[in-house]
Amino acid sequence: MAKAPVLTPRADDFPRWYQDLINKAELADNGPVRGTMVIRPYGYGLWERMQAEMDARIKGTGTKNAYFPLLIPQSYLTREADHVEGFAPELAVVTHAGGKELEEPAVVRPTSETIVNEYFSKWIQSYRDLPLLINQWANVVRWELRPRLFLRTSEFLWQEGHTAHATYEEARDFAAHIQRHVYGDFLENVLAMDFVSGRKTVKERFAGAVNTLTLESMMGDGKALQMVTSHELGQNFAKAFNTRYLSKDASQEYVWQTSWGSTTRMIGALVMTHGDDDGLRVPPRLAQIQAVVLAIKDDGAVLAKVHEIGDRLAAAGVRVHVDDRTDTPFGRRAVDWELKGVPVRIEVGPRDLENGTAMLARRIAGGKEPVALEALPGLVPGILEEDQALLLKQSRERRLSRTAEVSTIDEAVEAAVAGGWARIPWSVLGEDGEAELAEHAVTVRCLVTEDGAVPDADDAPGNVAVVARAY
Amino acid sequence: MAKAPVLTPRADDFPRWYQDLINKAELADNGPVRGTMVIRPYGYGLWERMQAEMDARIKGTGTKNAYFPLLIPQSYLTREADHVEGFAPELAVVTHAGGKELEEPAVVRPTSETIVNEYFSKWIQSYRDLPLLINQWANVVRWELRPRLFLRTSEFLWQEGHTAHATYEEARDFAAHIQRHVYGDFLENVLAMDFVSGRKTVKERFAGAVNTLTLESMMGDGKALQMVTSHELGQNFAKAFNTRYLSKDASQEYVWQTSWGSTTRMIGALVMTHGDDDGLRVPPRLAQIQAVVLAIKDDGAVLAKVHEIGDRLAAAGVRVHVDDRTDTPFGRRAVDWELKGVPVRIEVGPRDLENGTAMLARRIAGGKEPVALEALPGLVPGILEEDQALLLKQSRERRLSRTAEVSTIDEAVEAAVAGGWARIPWSVLGEDGEAELAEHAVTVRCLVTEDGAVPDADDAPGNVAVVARAY
Repeated sequence: MAKAPVLTPRADDFPRWYQDLINKAELADNGPVRGTMVIRPYGYGLWERMQAEMDARIKGTGTKNAYFPLLIPQSYLTREADHVEGFAPELAVVTHAGGKELEEPAVVRPTSETIVNEYFSKWIQSYRDLPLLINQWANVVRWELRPRLFLRTSEFLWQEGHTAHATYEEARDFAAHIQRHVYGDFLENVLAMDFVSGRKTVKERFAGAVNTLTLESMMGDGKALQMVTSHELGQNFAKAFNTRYLSKDASQEYVWQTSWGSTTRMIGALVMTHGDDDGLRVPPRLAQIQAVVLAIKDDGAVLAKVHEIGDRLAAAGVRVHVDDRTDTPFGRRAVDWELKGVPVRIEVGPRDLENGTAMLARRIAGGKEPVALEALPGLVPGILEEDQALLLKQSRERRLSRTAEVSTIDEAVEAAVAGGWARIPWSVLGEDGEAELAEHAVTVRCLVTEDGAVPDADDAPGNVAVVARAY
Repeated sequence: MAKAPVLTPRADDFPRWYQDLINKAELADNGPVRGTMVIRPYGYGLWERMQAEMDARIKGTGTKNAYFPLLIPQSYLTREADHVEGFAPELAVVTHAGGKELEEPAVVRPTSETIVNEYFSKWIQSYRDLPLLINQWANVVRWELRPRLFLRTSEFLWQEGHTAHATYEEARDFAAHIQRHVYGDFLENVLAMDFVSGRKTVKERFAGAVNTLTLESMMGDGKALQMVTSHELGQNFAKAFNTRYLSKDASQEYVWQTSWGSTTRMIGALVMTHGDDDGLRVPPRLAQIQAVVLAIKDDGAVLAKVHEIGDRLAAAGVRVHVDDRTDTPFGRRAVDWELKGVPVRIEVGPRDLENGTAMLARRIAGGKEPVALEALPGLVPGILEEDQALLLKQSRERRLSRTAEVSTIDEAVEAAVAGGWARIPWSVLGEDGEAELAEHAVTVRCLVTEDGAVPDADDAPGNVAVVARAY
């Protein structure tokens, strides 16, 4: 008899499957204020691991963490014209505080370019103060009319990097370095996620940027998700906030800037990329629990053995959790660990002990087989490495098999509506074609060069547009 | 010739010295919205180290991190009567969002007991779900009329723990465990700060708690600062939010709860406890930079040597920074590292190399002497341990020498106004005496037992009140 599905199958209703999984794996709940979310401990544990891996990479670039205020005077937002136009519809505004109406309303930060520049202007005096490389881990609020847990929430957690440089070239190269060596490396080597790295069209650019770089990944249903972005801000904010430095030849120059962000949206991406009909599958390098050891029965020898196995796996460098909650039925616990996507599950009962074995279930590659207890510490690290590679391979193969090379706008729309991506020459599409795609809820995810690199210009010859429906 | 003071001397004007230090050591700036602050990289580095040390201790209790929304429906606050009375004057309120007026205003969280309980009510079903131990690292907003950087800011960063237990005793013991083994251990062994551990009077209790435990430390000017608090909430929030569980004998029971917090105020406390007229002195176990190696001159051999020393100190387990910015005058850099309170400064110039030595300056114990280069990796770890102990000793001696045993309210006021603490029997003081102290801006910091333990009750015989002026 086939077991009853724990989740709505993906093929039946992908959005409902996503909601089911978030709920049953205890990742998050909807918050009481529209579009907000409560991140539950298991979901937050994923974020903590993302933070740790990302923070180390960010610090590796010489960037330091700092903290800027949540509340920004409303007038700051208006100083950069494109910026306020982009963010005005999404702002949450504090009008009263301390029992009084405020003289000037304060917006809850939707992003911090404006307030950061106010302080960069104070801190930067001369070329010796450059580059100034700052990052903050913070919450931001952007009001959402159609919220979806992790993907689009009115409040989300993120890191936002803000840097100031002496020259255009240096800023450009830094934005690209973050894109490739911080974000790209993290996605590929920790999240095991394939992506296309490209440049946003003018229409899709960050409000206030002169160039936006993006990493776009294909989700399990063939839609695209913008994973992270890295912006060249040019001198737009520097001019709006008078952020200047004394150059080596004693002239006052505006700084060149970048900003770049990654958010709790990555948790949603993780679910939609690696999840299957049994739940989440967490890449081993990300997993806060790489292996769980379950006691099947409340039996003294079994309980002693699961803890012994736990200790030996920990000594072998595995992040391990021992589940000895034998007052909860074994089957329910096994399903729960499957839902939560722990890569390796080791089950130990009295009969296993007699045989000197345990059942080892692989959540990612699949399969379940008895393994000699003695062999476990030697075996598990290798399984984790295999499974990390397998997830990346599956993610990459999905994109490659579901991306069509097309030469007309109609074909591009057709491919996207069918649940795939299309690659179409930008010279064929252009801004008019981009507007035409929008009528079918299809967008240009990014522009790439013929050989898949990031183009230097919006209209460089040979630019290819990657188009899809997107979250 | 004595060097010109970098800071206003403490004896001249303690509050100005504090402001000077925060500013010149680049810890923080005032934010543009009243009472907010920008935490600069060096100040934020202190917070990151505090977070890491504290987070490990919190996780050691079995508590897991999660994240609750910033915005709380205004109606939630009103459900617990004492709670809303305590916080109403400090609330910041979002009335407009997404371009519209909200149907129900949302408050920016001043603390999260209400919204946490809303979800605990959903997550807790039976005794199997208890204890539920949750912590979050977050920003909160409490409008401040007399803001002071780190000590009282309209927005601050903190961790807030929230737990639910099956019995009164378990909740009581958990609040005490956090107080002693998380907060107390952290203050003593990382911040090197002395404290008195006690119980708040009814007047000073957290709004909504049945008991508030506190750690109070003496600052450099003899005033008190409330460092951290841990509350027994009884069943107050459980009843307001109907947070119940099915007990083993199948009855519905309200949970017993605790909450506990520590904030960026600890950075201010660190300054006011360990700072001197030359700047901050950072306890070695907290310091993100324990030793700095300075190149005095732009000289190839010197530059090679400072990096070699840096590598060898790092290999010896020292958190080391190499300062080779020889385009900035050496004297200015030396003063800057003094201001920032880096425990050990190692200065290397061409003459030192000839002698095979470096100058080693100790920021905490004081003194500067030549040390053989070869000896440095063996020497520095021991110096750091010595200095950690010295700071704690100085902090403890300050409190002991400036605390008076008194037997009348007048004497208590006199001692506090003179810049010290007084210990007075609670049976002598009482709530009327507490009101009398308030007329002199003196407060009861906490109650302790005759032998310095935390009392079990407000009016236990032998209770002693520790009174002082406070930040």
